[in-house]
Amino acid sequence: MPKVSQQYLDTRKQEILDGARRAFSRWGYEGATVARLEEEIGLSRGAIFSYFPSKWELFFALATADQQRVGELWLELGFEGVVRHFGEEDPDWIGAYLEVMRLLRTDPALRAQWQARNPELHQQIVAELDRQRADGPQRSDVPLESVGMSLGVVLDGLAVHRGAGVPIDVEGTLEFVRAALAPK
Amino acid sequence: MPKVSQQYLDTRKQEILDGARRAFSRWGYEGATVARLEEEIGLSRGAIFSYFPSKWELFFALATADQQRVGELWLELGFEGVVRHFGEEDPDWIGAYLEVMRLLRTDPALRAQWQARNPELHQQIVAELDRQRADGPQRSDVPLESVGMSLGVVLDGLAVHRGAGVPIDVEGTLEFVRAALAPK
Repeated sequence: MPKVSQQYLDTRKQEILDGARRAFSRWGYEGATVARLEEEIGLSRGAIFSYFPSKWELFFALATADQQRVGELWLELGFEGVVRHFGEEDPDWIGAYLEVMRLLRTDPALRAQWQARNPELHQQIVAELDRQRADGPQRSDVPLESVGMSLGVVLDGLAVHRGAGVPIDVEGTLEFVRAALAPK
Repeated sequence: MPKVSQQYLDTRKQEILDGARRAFSRWGYEGATVARLEEEIGLSRGAIFSYFPSKWELFFALATADQQRVGELWLELGFEGVVRHFGEEDPDWIGAYLEVMRLLRTDPALRAQWQARNPELHQQIVAELDRQRADGPQRSDVPLESVGMSLGVVLDGLAVHRGAGVPIDVEGTLEFVRAALAPK
């Protein structure tokens, strides 16, 4: 039997994640049946579940990867960069992200698993906010955690608009946020 | 045959909407099968569909009623009142609301139907923002439509947090928004 290369495995895994993202985004978690996953991914259930042990593991891997990507974008481009990215990005991952957020509500075990998924990223973002505050004229009378929470609320709100196909007013949103953070 | 009173009909209809909200919030639109709707509502499919011609009509009626309610709260309590309400409210309707937003993305016909559902409410909220601007010290160098959009983004972001069972920092959010709207 020929040995399968790591690159082959990685490519195949990425294909599965991309197809699964479309399926979860379109049908929701419960609505994305195994038959629909097979169709969107273009592989048999046997092949899919040899990479991810269950539908749930597949969904969780996808959600974690997408969330990680937004966090990395924030570190790389800053908050404004993420907002601009939201204005351009194909919103398939947004549908899947909103599915995660919905599922978290009714499943405390899942919520614990989700919250524990990447504590370093949260710390890195707070550190980035700290650098940003040191760099520019920005109000310093509110805790960084509170600023981070508010910016997260804005991003989630934009995700909802974008996910619903409502156009985003990128510049209007940035102006709003800049004013909120400006020194008093 | 005894005549059925209007009050009886209204009560029954409200029961159906309340049960359906729990079912859609928990299972998603596709996952809320007719059997699950029957179980949450406590009525047979025959009874349910004598009030609403289809699952889709039931979902749309629910989503419209919930959205209307948030709009009316905004008019009644102002934006800050809505944010406080988000901090207290049982978030069942939020799960259903996020389902609507997800469905809008993949269904252009639905999007048109949703956007046409209540043009007056949108106008009333813009008028309310106008009154608010006249009342208090507030920046006037950004269009009201843009302010309305940004406040809508914040509410949708709070809905996502609340829907995911993440506690909302009500006072932190209000402080952020007040700063964003303060005169320069």
